[in-house]
Amino acid sequence: MRYFIEFAYKGTHYHGSQVQPNGVTVQQVLEDAFLTLLRQPVSLVFAGRTDAGVHARQMVAHFDLSACPPDVDRLNRLLPPDIAVQRIFAVPDDLHARFSAVSRTYEYHICTHKSPFAIDTCTYVPAALDYEAMNEAASHLLGTRDFASFCKVHTDVKTTICTVTEAEWRTDGEHAVFTITADRFLRNMVRAVVGTLFDVGRHKLSPQDFEAIILSQSRQRAGQSAPPEGLYLTAVRY
Amino acid sequence: MRYFIEFAYKGTHYHGSQVQPNGVTVQQVLEDAFLTLLRQPVSLVFAGRTDAGVHARQMVAHFDLSACPPDVDRLNRLLPPDIAVQRIFAVPDDLHARFSAVSRTYEYHICTHKSPFAIDTCTYVPAALDYEAMNEAASHLLGTRDFASFCKVHTDVKTTICTVTEAEWRTDGEHAVFTITADRFLRNMVRAVVGTLFDVGRHKLSPQDFEAIILSQSRQRAGQSAPPEGLYLTAVRY
Repeated sequence: MRYFIEFAYKGTHYHGSQVQPNGVTVQQVLEDAFLTLLRQPVSLVFAGRTDAGVHARQMVAHFDLSACPPDVDRLNRLLPPDIAVQRIFAVPDDLHARFSAVSRTYEYHICTHKSPFAIDTCTYVPAALDYEAMNEAASHLLGTRDFASFCKVHTDVKTTICTVTEAEWRTDGEHAVFTITADRFLRNMVRAVVGTLFDVGRHKLSPQDFEAIILSQSRQRAGQSAPPEGLYLTAVRY
Repeated sequence: MRYFIEFAYKGTHYHGSQVQPNGVTVQQVLEDAFLTLLRQPVSLVFAGRTDAGVHARQMVAHFDLSACPPDVDRLNRLLPPDIAVQRIFAVPDDLHARFSAVSRTYEYHICTHKSPFAIDTCTYVPAALDYEAMNEAASHLLGTRDFASFCKVHTDVKTTICTVTEAEWRTDGEHAVFTITADRFLRNMVRAVVGTLFDVGRHKLSPQDFEAIILSQSRQRAGQSAPPEGLYLTAVRY
């Protein structure tokens, strides 16, 4: 039987979402908890990977198990405080957490004032940003385009084409949130997009420069990656 | 010239607000930053103390200085991320951060779901609580009463009488916030009140039992102190 598990995590103390040779990852901690509860190894297939320090409000993974799935409350008591399982539910056998996903949404959170309560969960950007210019630039992300400019180099993806359906900044003065939805994301894409939009917000680049960067398909033309602590995976849709 | 300084801090990594022989305190870190910037020692008089792990969204302190006060932005860059100065302003010489305050407001935050993003800033209470009963009990706090039942024993205060003007729980299902305002608070009072209200919310005590505990003036009759991580000083009024 195939199951989906939905969970949230604060990525601060993890070396990313997926099993790696060095450093503790969210996948490893979850699989260890499954092993403790079920007394058998379970492999989780994540909807996607998140980098070190990046958070998830809703990550999805699938696993196959002939026994009953673990109880959510018992799993949560066993897991550390920075990982919370929301639900586990049976799905058709051909539903795949990664390949069946039709869209993902990320949010990037910034605070414009020093905020003692959001140290690891918000990026502090003291400079005033021009959100109107950033939104004009972000509108060029919409549609089916080649996003090689915002893709980590030397990755082995077959294509750098994605379809972005939402890309917008909203601000209340003290905080700002960038929401971006696409069918798929390239490695480091959201942080590279946000870092380049910061350059637009500081008037180092114009919205037209931003469009030219997309068209150039050159990672060198884009800005620095924004720090991981402001980034959240917020939804995966099937 | 006398100045007021308003600031916020996350109390997780401090041994409380005020200078003590052991452990780093908020007062010490602030006074060190003043010394670095002004090259002269400055003594801060806090509006009140907070215990280890307790936060402040708005603490107030006064200090006397013949030189110009330090620049808020420079002070914030020098201070660690978990202390943020909001403003510094001149006040009349006879205004005292502690004795001139007419009221203080505290909030106690609980989350009813495991929340990876609120580990140090919210108390996780998985049990369902009866907020109606807790608010009925809390209504007995209102007015000028002797709160010896909720005061840490062996403190050297002259009186345990306080005037409470606000004491109410509000919840949206996933979170709940208890707001309490009084002219003054005794040591450990809010945490003892909240811990005892938890017993009402779990039906171990009735609202009438809660009133009897107040009238008993006996700390032994009240419940356990609620943990510090959910508690915030949110306002001091003059």
